[in-house]
Amino acid sequence: MKAKAAVVGLGFVGRAHVDALRRLGVTICGGLGSSPKTTASACAAVGLARAYASLEEIAADASVEVVHLCTPNFLHFQEAGQLLRAGKHVLCEKPLTLDSRESELLVALAKETQRVGGVAYNLRYYPLCQEARALIEKGAIGRPNLVHGSFLQDWLLYESDWNWRLDPKLGGSLRAVSDIGTHWLDLVTWITGRRVTDLCADLATVIPVRQRPRGRVETFQKADPSDVEQVSITTEDYASVLFHLEGDVRGVMTVSQVSAGRKARLWFEIDGSEGSLAWNSEEPNTLWIGRRNAPSQELPKDPGLMSEATRRYAAYPGGHPEGYPDTFVQLFRDFYVYVEAGDQQAARSFPTFASGHEQMALCEAIEKSAQERTWVSLGSE
Amino acid sequence: MKAKAAVVGLGFVGRAHVDALRRLGVTICGGLGSSPKTTASACAAVGLARAYASLEEIAADASVEVVHLCTPNFLHFQEAGQLLRAGKHVLCEKPLTLDSRESELLVALAKETQRVGGVAYNLRYYPLCQEARALIEKGAIGRPNLVHGSFLQDWLLYESDWNWRLDPKLGGSLRAVSDIGTHWLDLVTWITGRRVTDLCADLATVIPVRQRPRGRVETFQKADPSDVEQVSITTEDYASVLFHLEGDVRGVMTVSQVSAGRKARLWFEIDGSEGSLAWNSEEPNTLWIGRRNAPSQELPKDPGLMSEATRRYAAYPGGHPEGYPDTFVQLFRDFYVYVEAGDQQAARSFPTFASGHEQMALCEAIEKSAQERTWVSLGSE
Amino acid sequence: MKAKAAVVGLGFVGRAHVDALRRLGVTICGGLGSSPKTTASACAAVGLARAYASLEEIAADASVEVVHLCTPNFLHFQEAGQLLRAGKHVLCEKPLTLDSRESELLVALAKETQRVGGVAYNLRYYPLCQEARALIEKGAIGRPNLVHGSFLQDWLLYESDWNWRLDPKLGGSLRAVSDIGTHWLDLVTWITGRRVTDLCADLATVIPVRQRPRGRVETFQKADPSDVEQVSITTEDYASVLFHLEGDVRGVMTVSQVSAGRKARLWFEIDGSEGSLAWNSEEPNTLWIGRRNAPSQELPKDPGLMSEATRRYAAYPGGHPEGYPDTFVQLFRDFYVYVEAGDQQAARSFPTFASGHEQMALCEAIEKSAQERTWVSLGSE
Amino acid sequence: MKAKAAVVGLGFVGRAHVDALRRLGVTICGGLGSSPKTTASACAAVGLARAYASLEEIAADASVEVVHLCTPNFLHFQEAGQLLRAGKHVLCEKPLTLDSRESELLVALAKETQRVGGVAYNLRYYPLCQEARALIEKGAIGRPNLVHGSFLQDWLLYESDWNWRLDPKLGGSLRAVSDIGTHWLDLVTWITGRRVTDLCADLATVIPVRQRPRGRVETFQKADPSDVEQVSITTEDYASVLFHLEGDVRGVMTVSQVSAGRKARLWFEIDGSEGSLAWNSEEPNTLWIGRRNAPSQELPKDPGLMSEATRRYAAYPGGHPEGYPDTFVQLFRDFYVYVEAGDQQAARSFPTFASGHEQMALCEAIEKSAQERTWVSLGSE
Repeated sequence: MKAKAAVVGLGFVGRAHVDALRRLGVTICGGLGSSPKTTASACAAVGLARAYASLEEIAADASVEVVHLCTPNFLHFQEAGQLLRAGKHVLCEKPLTLDSRESELLVALAKETQRVGGVAYNLRYYPLCQEARALIEKGAIGRPNLVHGSFLQDWLLYESDWNWRLDPKLGGSLRAVSDIGTHWLDLVTWITGRRVTDLCADLATVIPVRQRPRGRVETFQKADPSDVEQVSITTEDYASVLFHLEGDVRGVMTVSQVSAGRKARLWFEIDGSEGSLAWNSEEPNTLWIGRRNAPSQELPKDPGLMSEATRRYAAYPGGHPEGYPDTFVQLFRDFYVYVEAGDQQAARSFPTFASGHEQMALCEAIEKSAQERTWVSLGSE
Repeated sequence: MKAKAAVVGLGFVGRAHVDALRRLGVTICGGLGSSPKTTASACAAVGLARAYASLEEIAADASVEVVHLCTPNFLHFQEAGQLLRAGKHVLCEKPLTLDSRESELLVALAKETQRVGGVAYNLRYYPLCQEARALIEKGAIGRPNLVHGSFLQDWLLYESDWNWRLDPKLGGSLRAVSDIGTHWLDLVTWITGRRVTDLCADLATVIPVRQRPRGRVETFQKADPSDVEQVSITTEDYASVLFHLEGDVRGVMTVSQVSAGRKARLWFEIDGSEGSLAWNSEEPNTLWIGRRNAPSQELPKDPGLMSEATRRYAAYPGGHPEGYPDTFVQLFRDFYVYVEAGDQQAARSFPTFASGHEQMALCEAIEKSAQERTWVSLGSE
Repeated sequence: MKAKAAVVGLGFVGRAHVDALRRLGVTICGGLGSSPKTTASACAAVGLARAYASLEEIAADASVEVVHLCTPNFLHFQEAGQLLRAGKHVLCEKPLTLDSRESELLVALAKETQRVGGVAYNLRYYPLCQEARALIEKGAIGRPNLVHGSFLQDWLLYESDWNWRLDPKLGGSLRAVSDIGTHWLDLVTWITGRRVTDLCADLATVIPVRQRPRGRVETFQKADPSDVEQVSITTEDYASVLFHLEGDVRGVMTVSQVSAGRKARLWFEIDGSEGSLAWNSEEPNTLWIGRRNAPSQELPKDPGLMSEATRRYAAYPGGHPEGYPDTFVQLFRDFYVYVEAGDQQAARSFPTFASGHEQMALCEAIEKSAQERTWVSLGSE
Repeated sequence: MKAKAAVVGLGFVGRAHVDALRRLGVTICGGLGSSPKTTASACAAVGLARAYASLEEIAADASVEVVHLCTPNFLHFQEAGQLLRAGKHVLCEKPLTLDSRESELLVALAKETQRVGGVAYNLRYYPLCQEARALIEKGAIGRPNLVHGSFLQDWLLYESDWNWRLDPKLGGSLRAVSDIGTHWLDLVTWITGRRVTDLCADLATVIPVRQRPRGRVETFQKADPSDVEQVSITTEDYASVLFHLEGDVRGVMTVSQVSAGRKARLWFEIDGSEGSLAWNSEEPNTLWIGRRNAPSQELPKDPGLMSEATRRYAAYPGGHPEGYPDTFVQLFRDFYVYVEAGDQQAARSFPTFASGHEQMALCEAIEKSAQERTWVSLGSE
């Protein structure tokens, strides 16, 4: 890859971006952390040559073509806007913004500036998720009728668990839905090629008061228990959402960050008129294909057994498991190939700002539905 | 066991009752099929000595103390009433009746006649379902917060699949919910010891027209495809239900009879403040216990590892799988021991007519919620 | 079934025989325990009408046609001989005898007396083991090339674990091989239809000294720890056996009674030129069919998906798990149907005394191989 | 990492090395393919700046400190020797050489030249394999008693499958044992910390004649079927090996390259006096811990649940699967950290030339045992 990158935000997922960019041979000009002081040490720890002093400095660095935004949600809108205007392509972590007004503006701005916007819905890039989409497209399970599943975690099970996402000012007014629910919804709507038309949601804050450490806590890390304050929590630990997709496909999704033993388990099942697909992100190298009048099948992540269009997303032969870090490589390759081709009219295989905006609209509908205890229709777009 | 039995309805599940009664050493006085002609051959096939000519004949047979009703749903109310009045104890297949008015009357009649009524929610009697209840009672997963899962089948996937349950006159105005959804709801409300307080349901008839064979079709069997008529279907192939349990436990259930590759897979997960439980009826001999700060556990159906109160429900040592037929043995033992003890004031460990009535009320709330696209509260009882 | 039975030995497995006989509608005339005193209580516990005083009494009871021997191994030879001479058909628990001289004599005696002898290698009667045999017969995996697997238990893991099988006078000079290894070998040689021609074995007594309780201990039960004596153990806790089957099929088996967490897990894999089969007794309702150029398959225990010849061994529809107790029902049905047909020339679908003798010859070859640390050829028969 | 690298051999595994080196930030000076022509295109495909013309050129390039050998087995000895003498550290793919005479010479040469030699037994670097070793060291399963398992593949199932490893001149006189068996043996002897003392092996060439394409075939790729010649095969498709480890631990290993549906499945179980461990490379993110008197456990690849000494080998939080490519990163980090520290007396945590030599000695013992049909003792070293 020839386009050069910078990475903003060097926490857990920022480092995943750096790792994937290196594997693609993308030159990373430098990084920016949450403060000048942390930037220097974070860049050193990750091995980045240059520690930028500010976003402005990145915006002004002519060698940088793509900027990866791995910062807390509340910063995405401002940062992405600034960078687009400075002529950078932007690959932003999810959720794209705090609300759909912001995400709509970003979609428009990217169009106006002729820059490419992507959102890191990386789970699409598990090879067998690509294959699931291809199988449905070719009719392998007939007409999709039902979609159901969940995304469960346990890292916020205890009231002593803390992360910036718990603060609505930093993460937004939704949490589990926005952080993992949009992953699930993006994935299954993309696999089935159908948008949500109606939904009805139930949200719950299972742990109403938590202990906030006064110091900073890394995602998935533990805080110092001795220096905490009690904080009322307004965002949801749990959500279940009934929904309809275009073409009267029915579905339901459950997300939780308080399910003990589920570390980060996204599972979906899609039931069609001729067969079913089921997949689970904690064992991502097998896709279950359910059959009625024949034995069900286990499709391994084996390029030799995958569709011609998707086997390129499997970097290794069957029996050689690929995982979470590999999804970023595949996503970024699609993105950079597109950027380098330079044709903004070409179809985009990666999740775009429009994908990110679609999720923001869903989040708002979910929030409204839960508040009003009623079904909500998504506007036609 | 000393109480003697008769079995009404000798189809798939009637034969399961006969099998279990024999294992308990219960004397079966005879059976009654759907017509005099089929009764004779069905009794012969199953090895029952006496083929009754009518329900009246059973009601009049003084040697019979317990009657098992394994007939289509629409007959339960009339048959159970007649038998209770004749002084018989009644163990009825689920759902207990076609609506909650009927089930309420049966609850009252059983009380009035001082006869014992049971409903065959046999899934409670998988040894590890008993254990799940015991674990929650003893606080092994803390406070239950979330309940989610599904009951999926594929035997009605094709429009050429037919069964009497598809006819609302025989099976009632709900189908998937009533046939398998009530199994799921009965199971998780019994395990958690909490009743549903509110719910919001989405139902779908995925296959709106089916081919009805003019001849009779046994449950789980295939019809002769050459002699069929097109029939509009009004009952649901699919349902998802958001619900709240007492104590603000949140939950969601999905049922489907059109999920290819899922033969009869009931799965639940219960997430508590200190751990989780997950279980699946197609692999019933393992209970998963999820943990946050320790490895999760696989509890085998091993009397040596089960609670003192539940190990008696495991008839064989660990590593010796038990299955569907064994659940009826355990249920019937509880029922017959109770009947023989003769103390109607004693607590009942088996699913009662009140349990059956509770499910009928839930069915009606689900139907109302789906029709009106709104949340419905269950009345306090 | 019309033939009447008696059951000798009313421990763990004797009760499994009684249970299965009842399900078949076989009249059980009575039972015999290990002593007159225990007989009475054991018969009462199991609900058998008559407690025999001695084997002679059974031999003399003209109403008894079939006797089930569920006694410790060392008694089988004498008891089976006495009963055959008294004109009884004999269904004996495995292993058939203590050595191949005895088993050869029993084969000859059954032939001479024109009585039917069976051995309770019940694992053959898991429906999907029947199906595995049928699939190989019809060439579904091509030519079998490799057979491998294990039978692992943990009930003798601790030196405080005791059972009569640990005493070579009661159980024979082999233990793990004889008790569970012969199950495995019987199963895979029956499924592949090929006999062992050569083998090389390694045995180990992992726990060389155990604590024997002075009182009696039931199989799979725990002893009173306060009243024990130290005993040197000469029989093996572990064995692995390299072997060749007819037609140069290669194989290896591992058995152990000291593998923590494995309650009674028999697992085999058979690799053929076009596909593979794998099955595991702790999850018996799925058969894995491995493929190279297609996704592998999960065949459920579903009569609708099984071969025409084997679906009768599945008593319930797909999704309704069957287990260990059900295997005895299927085995006994085959046996009793044969007995009642009365044609001793007809082919026998169940494991016979010849099957039992074949296993005794294998046991002796295994013992010899391990002692001499060399390959041993099985004589042609 | 500061040490600079070159990679020799740019096939399947060579590209895996390049990928991992990039993730570590190691500068790769250039690569060398199997011929000048293929080198240029392979380097371009992988994105390496410099295409070396010969090994001599690499040996002479002073900027290169570490050379990765990813060439066919028969070249390792000569290449490694030349590079060590030129002052390079060498990280060689397995097996280290064609025989133990060669591997012994390399061990000596590395010592003499004071260069660091490593062998790419990368499976040790699955985080949960590191954890398995740590658990055994800390006594979590008591004394190891039994070790069993297999490494199964299906890529050579058909006689039309070809790869250079089938030619003994290129791959050596053993194939399945050398290619995958040594992975298994290296892994379990390293995890248990015990060497093999005795063994008895059975080998089989299941497919005695294969079709060799006249063109080149990449590992795991398919050949052009129209341009082939019939070739007699002398190397084994299958092996099973009984063995003893130091301290009288008993074991057995099965390897096969003709097991349909098993893509590359290494599985081991280690049974100790207090617990068991089981792991399988196709689902590498869970370690099963078997218990007798408690439920068995599923340990996820979760740094928060792993031992303090091993959690650094898990790069991502629990629920974020890692896979085959990640193992090379972890192995190379250990190797490069050692090289850069510059202390040749320090203990080596990675697989060394001595590890590679140990496997060659095992291969020879296995070959001898199979030929002579007898147990073989490994000399004390």
